[in-house]
Amino acid sequence: MKLYRPDEIEKRSFEIITQEIGDIELDAKVAPIVKRVIHTTADFDYLHNLCFSENVINIALEAIKKGVDIVTDTKMALSGINKAALAKAGGKAYCYMADEDVARKAKEQNSTRASVSMEKAAELDKPLIFAIGNAPTALIKLDELIKSNKIKPVLIIGVPVGFVNVVESKELIMKSGVPYIVARGRKGGSNVAAAIVNALLYMAYPRES
Amino acid sequence: MKLYRPDEIEKRSFEIITQEIGDIELDAKVAPIVKRVIHTTADFDYLHNLCFSENVINIALEAIKKGVDIVTDTKMALSGINKAALAKAGGKAYCYMADEDVARKAKEQNSTRASVSMEKAAELDKPLIFAIGNAPTALIKLDELIKSNKIKPVLIIGVPVGFVNVVESKELIMKSGVPYIVARGRKGGSNVAAAIVNALLYMAYPRES
Repeated sequence: MKLYRPDEIEKRSFEIITQEIGDIELDAKVAPIVKRVIHTTADFDYLHNLCFSENVINIALEAIKKGVDIVTDTKMALSGINKAALAKAGGKAYCYMADEDVARKAKEQNSTRASVSMEKAAELDKPLIFAIGNAPTALIKLDELIKSNKIKPVLIIGVPVGFVNVVESKELIMKSGVPYIVARGRKGGSNVAAAIVNALLYMAYPRES
Repeated sequence: MKLYRPDEIEKRSFEIITQEIGDIELDAKVAPIVKRVIHTTADFDYLHNLCFSENVINIALEAIKKGVDIVTDTKMALSGINKAALAKAGGKAYCYMADEDVARKAKEQNSTRASVSMEKAAELDKPLIFAIGNAPTALIKLDELIKSNKIKPVLIIGVPVGFVNVVESKELIMKSGVPYIVARGRKGGSNVAAAIVNALLYMAYPRES
């Protein structure tokens, strides 16, 4: 097999993805996100299931350049986000899932830790991007908090994966009035959430090639 | 939408997966792994692309119960592994990707950090399970180390994802003579690697339902 140099691997991967996408029309603004998600999953379903609210890329890039913080619903998504790129404008990434107070409240309320994590994030009272790759209950809670004016996210990346309440929770977010990037249907994941965040970061801060 | 209680969500998800798999024959030994990967990805392709070497489940469970350590090629896979379950028999999980010495050597050798990480793991000189969800170069290096008798993994979970050298690297591992669980083809990921490890851990230590 032809072994590529480390610095060539990603470039060559994106060339192959672009080639296989072929003639399918892809909005130039969202193409880097769609391609990075396919790069992360090798799953071309994301060509069709990723949904973007109007003008969402401009909104996201502007917020990133102002140092917006990011809240995730898994440690996996948190660890996949390029924190060095995010820090360029002072942005930080948080995940409250392992916090003791979150675990305690979730148990008390017979709720999920993801749901309680969103309540905790709402208390930050600052512009936030939510990157939700696992828990539909996080999206359901965000929708509730939006409706009761307790939170107004800059952007919700809504890509939980799974079989229970996942499809419906994503539809809720797409009707919430908040800017969104959503993987419609069952697919998604922490890796997909991190890939979307990183695609946005690399659009905000183009890397040397 | 019917909201399930937190403790019901996973159970209900597995019921749906089992139902949708339907009549497709699935070896009882490997079924928990295949189902957990589908649970993690919502991608039924894994019904067909997961390959298991002979007797690999017994080998893996025995090693886990003896406290085998696990080496991953990403922080994401590391953070997805259930460390509490692994620790029951004294097992630990490692990822060397962010180590300074690894970064330096990779640069010097124009190699990947994943490849150098495998060399570093070989120096541990103890029984190891490798959970590789990202880097084909990790698998290629493992194959080299196996051929030169520098390492003898208990099990290689070979599920890197992508478009460059990925397919071929997995085929190498399937011919290496080492017990393997491989996602044949392009698909896989850090999430898939962690899901397979966790499925094995939950087989070794059944959770209360």
